[in-house]
Amino acid sequence: MTKGNINVSVENIFPLIKKFLYSDHEIFLRELISNATDATSKLNHLSNIGEAKTELGSIEIEVKIDKENKKLHIIDRGVGMTAEEVEKYINQVAFSGAEEFLEKYKDSAKDSGIIGHFGLGFYSAFMVAKEVEILTKSYKEDSVAVRWVCDGSPEFTLEDYPEKTTRGTEIILHIAEDSTEFLEEYRIRELLTKYNKFMPVPIKFGTKTETLPLPEDAAEDAKPETVEVDNIINNPNPAWTKNPSELNENDYKEFYHELYPMQFEEPLFNIHLNVDYPFNLTGILYFPKLANNLNIEKDKIQLYQNQVFVTDEVKGIVPDFLMLLRGVIDSPDIPLNVSRSYLQADGAVKKISSYITKKVADKMSSLINEDRKSYEEKWNDIKIVIEYGMISEEKFFEKSDKFALYPTVDGNYFLWDELMEKIKENQTDKNGKTVLLYATNADAQDSYIQKAKEKGYEVLLLDSPIAPHLIQKLETSKDNISFARVDADHLNKLIEKDEPIISKLKDEEKEALKKTVEENLNNNSYTVQVEDLDSSDAPFLITQPEFMRRMKDMQATSGGGGMFGMGNMPEMYNLVVNSNSNLAEKILKTEDEDSKKSLINQAVNLAKLSQNLLKGKELTTFIENSYANLS
Amino acid sequence: MTKGNINVSVENIFPLIKKFLYSDHEIFLRELISNATDATSKLNHLSNIGEAKTELGSIEIEVKIDKENKKLHIIDRGVGMTAEEVEKYINQVAFSGAEEFLEKYKDSAKDSGIIGHFGLGFYSAFMVAKEVEILTKSYKEDSVAVRWVCDGSPEFTLEDYPEKTTRGTEIILHIAEDSTEFLEEYRIRELLTKYNKFMPVPIKFGTKTETLPLPEDAAEDAKPETVEVDNIINNPNPAWTKNPSELNENDYKEFYHELYPMQFEEPLFNIHLNVDYPFNLTGILYFPKLANNLNIEKDKIQLYQNQVFVTDEVKGIVPDFLMLLRGVIDSPDIPLNVSRSYLQADGAVKKISSYITKKVADKMSSLINEDRKSYEEKWNDIKIVIEYGMISEEKFFEKSDKFALYPTVDGNYFLWDELMEKIKENQTDKNGKTVLLYATNADAQDSYIQKAKEKGYEVLLLDSPIAPHLIQKLETSKDNISFARVDADHLNKLIEKDEPIISKLKDEEKEALKKTVEENLNNNSYTVQVEDLDSSDAPFLITQPEFMRRMKDMQATSGGGGMFGMGNMPEMYNLVVNSNSNLAEKILKTEDEDSKKSLINQAVNLAKLSQNLLKGKELTTFIENSYANLS
Repeated sequence: MTKGNINVSVENIFPLIKKFLYSDHEIFLRELISNATDATSKLNHLSNIGEAKTELGSIEIEVKIDKENKKLHIIDRGVGMTAEEVEKYINQVAFSGAEEFLEKYKDSAKDSGIIGHFGLGFYSAFMVAKEVEILTKSYKEDSVAVRWVCDGSPEFTLEDYPEKTTRGTEIILHIAEDSTEFLEEYRIRELLTKYNKFMPVPIKFGTKTETLPLPEDAAEDAKPETVEVDNIINNPNPAWTKNPSELNENDYKEFYHELYPMQFEEPLFNIHLNVDYPFNLTGILYFPKLANNLNIEKDKIQLYQNQVFVTDEVKGIVPDFLMLLRGVIDSPDIPLNVSRSYLQADGAVKKISSYITKKVADKMSSLINEDRKSYEEKWNDIKIVIEYGMISEEKFFEKSDKFALYPTVDGNYFLWDELMEKIKENQTDKNGKTVLLYATNADAQDSYIQKAKEKGYEVLLLDSPIAPHLIQKLETSKDNISFARVDADHLNKLIEKDEPIISKLKDEEKEALKKTVEENLNNNSYTVQVEDLDSSDAPFLITQPEFMRRMKDMQATSGGGGMFGMGNMPEMYNLVVNSNSNLAEKILKTEDEDSKKSLINQAVNLAKLSQNLLKGKELTTFIENSYANLS
Repeated sequence: MTKGNINVSVENIFPLIKKFLYSDHEIFLRELISNATDATSKLNHLSNIGEAKTELGSIEIEVKIDKENKKLHIIDRGVGMTAEEVEKYINQVAFSGAEEFLEKYKDSAKDSGIIGHFGLGFYSAFMVAKEVEILTKSYKEDSVAVRWVCDGSPEFTLEDYPEKTTRGTEIILHIAEDSTEFLEEYRIRELLTKYNKFMPVPIKFGTKTETLPLPEDAAEDAKPETVEVDNIINNPNPAWTKNPSELNENDYKEFYHELYPMQFEEPLFNIHLNVDYPFNLTGILYFPKLANNLNIEKDKIQLYQNQVFVTDEVKGIVPDFLMLLRGVIDSPDIPLNVSRSYLQADGAVKKISSYITKKVADKMSSLINEDRKSYEEKWNDIKIVIEYGMISEEKFFEKSDKFALYPTVDGNYFLWDELMEKIKENQTDKNGKTVLLYATNADAQDSYIQKAKEKGYEVLLLDSPIAPHLIQKLETSKDNISFARVDADHLNKLIEKDEPIISKLKDEEKEALKKTVEENLNNNSYTVQVEDLDSSDAPFLITQPEFMRRMKDMQATSGGGGMFGMGNMPEMYNLVVNSNSNLAEKILKTEDEDSKKSLINQAVNLAKLSQNLLKGKELTTFIENSYANLS
């Protein structure tokens, strides 16, 4: 039996890194700046604990394009490296310098949040450079600077380089022919803005002109002086890294616009996340104005690790319903580059997800308690998030009685218990079930709403695309209630009570009425029902049974016709004829067949109009006839 | 100056492979089966050219779960490996065996399509296994089987293993604790179905029972016999690898259902792609029934490389407008694992994209020529793809006169030239511009459509969500034409002709009419215009100017209010009063202010009805009054 070590052949590991390691070449700049930041943070730390005797001085990182010579420079003023360290951290690929550093200074480094991935990240430089130079001088006393050069083959050269007298590391990329885009100022600016906008060390890129304020004793015609100053592209202390007590409303809004410069609308409110046990997470979530929009693609939540932008694909980390929000989450504890199914099974991620859910629920409760009116005003813009949360996260649903509002068509907003208190007496039917009436479109269902209001019923306005799912959820979770859209049937049927029914017509007359309406209707999709309603009620009424309609609505949001093909089911309507109306009587008395037909036809048209069902040729004819009657 | 070689430290390359190489752990099975397939194809090839003297025998690949011992076996009957080859292909990570093989047998191997990535892919096994065994016996005469074992550390053992007497390689994965999902039959079946459904070597996974047919002389009460047979999970010869001349319509449909087992609808037609210069690509695209649905998320086009499933994210490879289609594309020339921006700049990808576009255009031309009627019947389901292509790909637009149809509200379908021929005379205005009238909703715009038809005008039905963009594109590309929706103005204004205008009213009377309508209208969002129309035209008419409405429609499809906030602009309407109508005269003659107000109010309500603008409270009142008038 042979024993041996697997040998990784370096000739082939380079193309591997180049092609597979990162699918996005642009990541190289983030990696190099991360290294520079780590080197600077290390120096800071060593200086704080008295191990580095050097003057800190300016610690900016500089990025510089030398277009003429096709070079890109990344310069830091951090710890630098000795020749031995270059040998160890650079020449030994995949040897994580940061890990060793952490091991050594474990306890003192923990709080300073230095987690890097020196070494491996460095080699991403070869994705865009045909040759890489490192000029570096260690912070250690009497150290000599060195110069390391490698052209992407595994061969490198290393020599003393006394020309460099400043502490720190300068990486020089000789940009490859196929990557000259990275010599363009706008491109580098774009990358710095995307990945490094909030990194903890100031990053200088080019200069900008600034106008100096005029001295107080300036002459009236004095022109303000302008000077060139360093252009710092990042904000090293973004709001989420601060303590909530240091921030006011305005700071949060300003940070929102810093995150999303193209967003002109103000966010509605924010939630500051801050936890360090059992996992580490900070961040700020914002509620934008959403109305009924379920598809937010732009300006998504951004995920950072120690202030380095990682991704804005947060599916699996943040509960689905909160993906409608905006903001940042910063956590070193979220595993990256792993599959979605793994993410969903990961314990840490589950905890993070449920922590965020809980924080959002708590924030909602406190918002409604602090200022009910202002919360109500925002409801229309936040309801989609809350409703989505209620149907998708059981824990969130359980807490929702404290902050989920049920608005009425009259603009009143009830919490669940308030609503039940309000309607219990009037809207409980003879079987003890409380019926919640709702509309999905106040305009389109107006005539039905008016009738309900005449009876003193409250009509909820549930107009979000996921409302049918929410209704379903509420019906299965709460006892002795049911929902019905105002046009699902006549109100006397929707909320049946033990009240005497008065009938003007005899049974034979009702039968005759039904028959004559059916004969003249000439439309199979309506089921004719003769009912004893109030004489003041509409003579004809079109209703659409709750169950089928709701199933169809639910499938419309879930997308596609689904397995059961509800989406393709025909619409089903009932035509309710009010036997106690004057018109019913008139129809029965009319003997001329043409007049009777015209009467029924007109009445059906009006009933259709109130359900938005009179369309096309029918509507055109109706209008022409009506104009003729007017003239 | 020192020179040296960069040393890749293996202790750390393993976690690298495990964590970074593939973001999806499940990929391991695809990689191992790819290797097994390569080994089998190689043997086939060597046997064909007479280099392998062995009996081919059964060449199935077998996948076997041993749940009790937490092992997963992948067994092939391919070339196998000698100890030296294990040393070379397995112990030297990132050494591509397939590449060397290809180099050696370059010309003869080219056609057999063997492109593998032996070696690297194998190590993905460690993403799910805590230990991996290889039992392998080379096809070469007198070779002895060997057994290689490695626990994920860089140390391995290699020994002779005479117990294995069959040719080929068996990989045994000792599944790690965190990956036990891969010991579940349903999970492995899922992976095999996803990645290996069309791989070129039969893959056996478990058994199934099959019912034998009864012999012809069977007794009447004989029961059919069932037997256990191997369950082959893949189709090694999928339709796209065949020559189109070997396939009939039914074969294409059957393959469609093989690709999308959950799709019950038939595709409308298919396009067989087949090119080998300047790049290699085969595939079949299907047109599903789309109607006006722009958001197809499920059942997307699948991308294969030599019959191995790679992804169904084809953005950047296939032109955007064709992403609405379904089907497969198989090409070894598409670079994977690269950034989207790189993909879009890649020359090969650009050529592939324009080849596919051209093929689709050619197919459309031939379809319409072969059977115009059947093409017309499908138009409603394919138009969104064609229209999207016309507005997004210039080359496609240039060819589109041959196959893009313009349907009318009457169900006639014209090609562009046919349409111009048909309408040129009647619909060219006094300035020589041909005006194309269209409706976006035949039902809602019916009264306007009827009026246009009375004048002998054709009204197009352009109801797809991207129609406004198409209209814009046509107006800027074609000479002397413009589009107007039928309700954009009165028809006399939309197509102005040199015809004498008759006016029943004097100018003062018209002025008085305008004033009284404005006074009684009480609504600032309507601009009142008194026009001399035909006496048979509607007395009142609401129109919505073309430009603003079209801009709003365009932005609705592009999503969001946009920078210019058109989405938030109020709707603008004109109220056209027909001075030659009887009602105009009656209004002028009515002296009682209340009667006049009621008359104007009724007329405006009817005009609103024909634009679907009478809603809510206004509509309820209108209906109540109408019922009262009936009774």
